[in-house]
Amino acid sequence: MSEHPRTIRVIGIGTGDPEHLTLQAVRALADVAAVFVLDKRAETADLVTARRRICEAHIARPYRLVTVDDPPRERRPADYAATVEAWHAARAARLEAAFADGLGTGEVGALLVWGDPALYDSTLRILERIEARGRLALACEVVPGISSVQVLCARHAVPLNTIGGAICITTGRRLAAGWPPDTDSVVVMLDGDPAFAGLDPDLTIHWGAYLGSPDEILVAGRLGDVGEEIRSLRAEARARHGWIMDIYLLTRRDAGRGV
Amino acid sequence: MSEHPRTIRVIGIGTGDPEHLTLQAVRALADVAAVFVLDKRAETADLVTARRRICEAHIARPYRLVTVDDPPRERRPADYAATVEAWHAARAARLEAAFADGLGTGEVGALLVWGDPALYDSTLRILERIEARGRLALACEVVPGISSVQVLCARHAVPLNTIGGAICITTGRRLAAGWPPDTDSVVVMLDGDPAFAGLDPDLTIHWGAYLGSPDEILVAGRLGDVGEEIRSLRAEARARHGWIMDIYLLTRRDAGRGV
Repeated sequence: MSEHPRTIRVIGIGTGDPEHLTLQAVRALADVAAVFVLDKRAETADLVTARRRICEAHIARPYRLVTVDDPPRERRPADYAATVEAWHAARAARLEAAFADGLGTGEVGALLVWGDPALYDSTLRILERIEARGRLALACEVVPGISSVQVLCARHAVPLNTIGGAICITTGRRLAAGWPPDTDSVVVMLDGDPAFAGLDPDLTIHWGAYLGSPDEILVAGRLGDVGEEIRSLRAEARARHGWIMDIYLLTRRDAGRGV
Repeated sequence: MSEHPRTIRVIGIGTGDPEHLTLQAVRALADVAAVFVLDKRAETADLVTARRRICEAHIARPYRLVTVDDPPRERRPADYAATVEAWHAARAARLEAAFADGLGTGEVGALLVWGDPALYDSTLRILERIEARGRLALACEVVPGISSVQVLCARHAVPLNTIGGAICITTGRRLAAGWPPDTDSVVVMLDGDPAFAGLDPDLTIHWGAYLGSPDEILVAGRLGDVGEEIRSLRAEARARHGWIMDIYLLTRRDAGRGV
């Protein structure tokens, strides 16, 4: 390995509001020489614009923008685990090559992550693979960012947990298998099409889409009363924008009331 | 109610690093006329100093500091639920009186919350009670902040979740009752004295104390290998500082490896 490693900063940039950036993120951006963008194909024009504005506002020098597209993925592999493993290895190799080509030794590169880098994002896992390969000396730094979970709660002005209660952050697919035991609060991320049908209609839902952006939509209420409204608002917004990013918090209605 | 409500901003300020503040928090602080501090008795000198520095750096005008101590709490009440309810009602009444006295109509007051206002903090619940009382017109705004969960993951450069896996955020007391089913990642907050004894020694632990401060301590490894080191570091640090704020992430060792 070279003696002067490249520095890679993984910077959480919040959910779309440029003011979600922390002062730490602003400082981390200032001396960046290259910004690496993973899988640009997955991004909408709105997200690309929001990221470009953040870079222009806070990177204090001319910087390079390096796009690293994901390798093609076999949709119906014969050996699922081996295929996924090979795909992740290929992603790591592509990003490693981009660092080697796009960044001089001693230079600082940035990966900008929507929300927080620790929450449902693959960037840290890819970097761990590059470090495990041991071919390129990297000094990695992670800057936390405001996640959609936090913006959801802030915009609705509600706590995430009941008093002393546990919180579960999960996917719609997992929640469909059953409400987690001994848990009053469930946050659902990555839900393609929310399946409220099997859930207790007396749950309280706090739902939000495009959180922190001018297109933000918020709905809250008893699931049995507002569930259909959310489904139709969601379908209509997705058709209008061409994409949707949303999240919701479900709470047992009388859980932790004042006690 | 008056026509011109007082504005109350509940601002998450992160875990002690002044650079955890978001640009939104910086803007929210600028025109604040009064900062309300709940239960100052519970705060250490370090935390008081950190908060004062944030106010001095970002509030752009002379501001008032109003301390609202918690009402005394009966330790062994005959009727637990009724006593706790009365105590919460008394807290809300005290804060309401402080807003009425300490803030003119049309003025902006701030409550600064460590971490994120949605996560294991009572401020939003107290404000909800004041709004339910209906005696004082308030316009409440919540500004999310970087939580200790996020700083823990960032400093260790690890993801919170396994791929597609669920996350449980809970208390030490609840975890002692059993590992939550179908969950690979558990974050423990509010753990007086970590009870690792009943847990699988093959779990991976990422532990951190005084996160984001110059006194930060980080330990990671197999629980069976580092559990005792964490317990002794923790006891030693608590004795030296007079207080400790720590958090840990437990992960099933082979969970979500690359798949």
